[in-house]
Amino acid sequence: MSRFFSPRYSMLEAYTPGEQPKDMKYVKLNTNESPYPPSPLVTAMVEAESKRLNLYSDPESRELTAAVAELYNVGSGNVLMTNGSDEVLNFAFMAFCDDEKGMAFPAVSYGFYPVFAQLNRIPFREIPLRDDFSIDVDDYCGIGMNIVIANPNAPTGLALGLDDIEKIVSSNRDSVVIIDEAYIDFGAQSAVELTKKYDNLLVTQTFSKSRSLAGARLGFGIGSEELINDLNTIKYSTNPYNINRMTSAAGIAAVKDNGYYMANCKKIEATREYMSQELKKMGFAMTDSKSNFLFARSDRIGGEQYYLTLKSMGILVRHFSKPEIDDYVRITVGTREQADILLSATEKILGVN
Amino acid sequence: MSRFFSPRYSMLEAYTPGEQPKDMKYVKLNTNESPYPPSPLVTAMVEAESKRLNLYSDPESRELTAAVAELYNVGSGNVLMTNGSDEVLNFAFMAFCDDEKGMAFPAVSYGFYPVFAQLNRIPFREIPLRDDFSIDVDDYCGIGMNIVIANPNAPTGLALGLDDIEKIVSSNRDSVVIIDEAYIDFGAQSAVELTKKYDNLLVTQTFSKSRSLAGARLGFGIGSEELINDLNTIKYSTNPYNINRMTSAAGIAAVKDNGYYMANCKKIEATREYMSQELKKMGFAMTDSKSNFLFARSDRIGGEQYYLTLKSMGILVRHFSKPEIDDYVRITVGTREQADILLSATEKILGVN
Repeated sequence: MSRFFSPRYSMLEAYTPGEQPKDMKYVKLNTNESPYPPSPLVTAMVEAESKRLNLYSDPESRELTAAVAELYNVGSGNVLMTNGSDEVLNFAFMAFCDDEKGMAFPAVSYGFYPVFAQLNRIPFREIPLRDDFSIDVDDYCGIGMNIVIANPNAPTGLALGLDDIEKIVSSNRDSVVIIDEAYIDFGAQSAVELTKKYDNLLVTQTFSKSRSLAGARLGFGIGSEELINDLNTIKYSTNPYNINRMTSAAGIAAVKDNGYYMANCKKIEATREYMSQELKKMGFAMTDSKSNFLFARSDRIGGEQYYLTLKSMGILVRHFSKPEIDDYVRITVGTREQADILLSATEKILGVN
Repeated sequence: MSRFFSPRYSMLEAYTPGEQPKDMKYVKLNTNESPYPPSPLVTAMVEAESKRLNLYSDPESRELTAAVAELYNVGSGNVLMTNGSDEVLNFAFMAFCDDEKGMAFPAVSYGFYPVFAQLNRIPFREIPLRDDFSIDVDDYCGIGMNIVIANPNAPTGLALGLDDIEKIVSSNRDSVVIIDEAYIDFGAQSAVELTKKYDNLLVTQTFSKSRSLAGARLGFGIGSEELINDLNTIKYSTNPYNINRMTSAAGIAAVKDNGYYMANCKKIEATREYMSQELKKMGFAMTDSKSNFLFARSDRIGGEQYYLTLKSMGILVRHFSKPEIDDYVRITVGTREQADILLSATEKILGVN
């Protein structure tokens, strides 16, 4: 820390992204990326756009916004496209929280929520999960704070049903409820339709997981026009050209090729079931994941040891040292081939033959 | 504004980007873009990278950072690559300012400085320019505030010499001085070398103007490792993957093709001199711009009327309604052909034959 660093942020614990070691080629099952490349249309549209990079992008991202709005059957005024869904989340923490109005979220969830709260000096409450890692909906009803819930939750993979979400949203009409649907396309049900009924609901999604664009940084929020306008005020005060030309082209192409990506999600769901069954045969316990990762533990090996041993064998998974979950590892569901590599390494580690 | 919007930001006046009308095709001389497309290597490298977008980018942007560090003859630890130079500027406002330590900048300068200050609730002082729009260096010596100065300044185009910058930096050793060199490649002298001598100096630059990448969003900061570390703390708390894969590839290609871009800058400087001479013949007064725009006024037509008349003729320039400068327009220097279109329209408007 330099002598110039403001005391405002001196206690800030920054987010730690999943490791990206470059010492060797790993089977990468640690950051929930899609194993499938973007569709050829993405490359074609990005290439064309790369010749116009001397010109600024449209700050309103009109074409991309309209495409996403049409896909989700909402109006363009209900959509804000952002530089990854992290950006719309941060904008929402900024716009709707302050010293008086804090944010509540599950104690085990996306690691960025407490960082955004600290960054913006917002009081926050981390609500423990049940012992089985499920969210107790009653904990969130009528609590008078803004709320952010990842659905499915990460790293547990567990999903809430729409009835439960509506219960939370309708019992907190004077607070903003954010449903972070980063992993929604792998088997859970989206709350987008509920945004038409509740002006205090903001749904966020990302193109990083189901649409193979982690490397392009594209996310969005859907909500009432009033919420979206507020988020735009923050956007135009931080990052007016937040979607660059190439990412915009990639996003438009990904919407056009929606069928390809949704078919990939089905493949990933099938691989998830296969991997889950095989790990169970080896004695692993797992949550009922509705996402593109498994959250698994074994009585025969600790979470950290399993992670480290896999890494020494060229396979990256993610381990969190948080005490509630340090027995577990989070394993991204990749291709069937990647699953077999992980399974066979696990057999070796456990001495299963 | 929704009923949920925090009072923290209710007075925030967001930045207004230059207009991007889509009703017709304009000669666009309003947002200081380069008229020259990126080099073919940009397209080639972006196309290749677009096939790997399913994977996250390197959060450390190691290859790009090393390339920029080599180009500027500094260490990789002295460079932070950002999502446009707006991002490094905002990070610096966040990291080095707070309620106690405000920011000073010229009263006529880049319109985002007061927005960043308001956004982060930082006290700020806008220091008037001299009547000829020059910066009085003595106004900034030993003032005990952080300082940001655009050099060349915008929209005036006037540049300070390195002696003047060193005077400001050396007289404010307990404050951070930011020199925003967005327009440095069009004839002014960079302060990058001074960052080796002064740990309180941060130089920021952008690939948007001289390197034809406005649509890719790429900027950077150069300073002491301690300053860069602080900025990284903010980065990892807001936007860890701030450089997407395509922008990173475009940036690496632009560094490799540095000669092409620097030759374009020379062409733009030549066109600036031509346009300036021709406008002077028509009675315009202009500052001695060292940037890729002219800042011009005429006794024969008001700034707003000139802007509106040009717009009706299909030519966009930028007019600011700020009282000190509302007689003026800012005209981006494009190609020689674009200059001739502007000059011939201006002849018509003024009735010169």
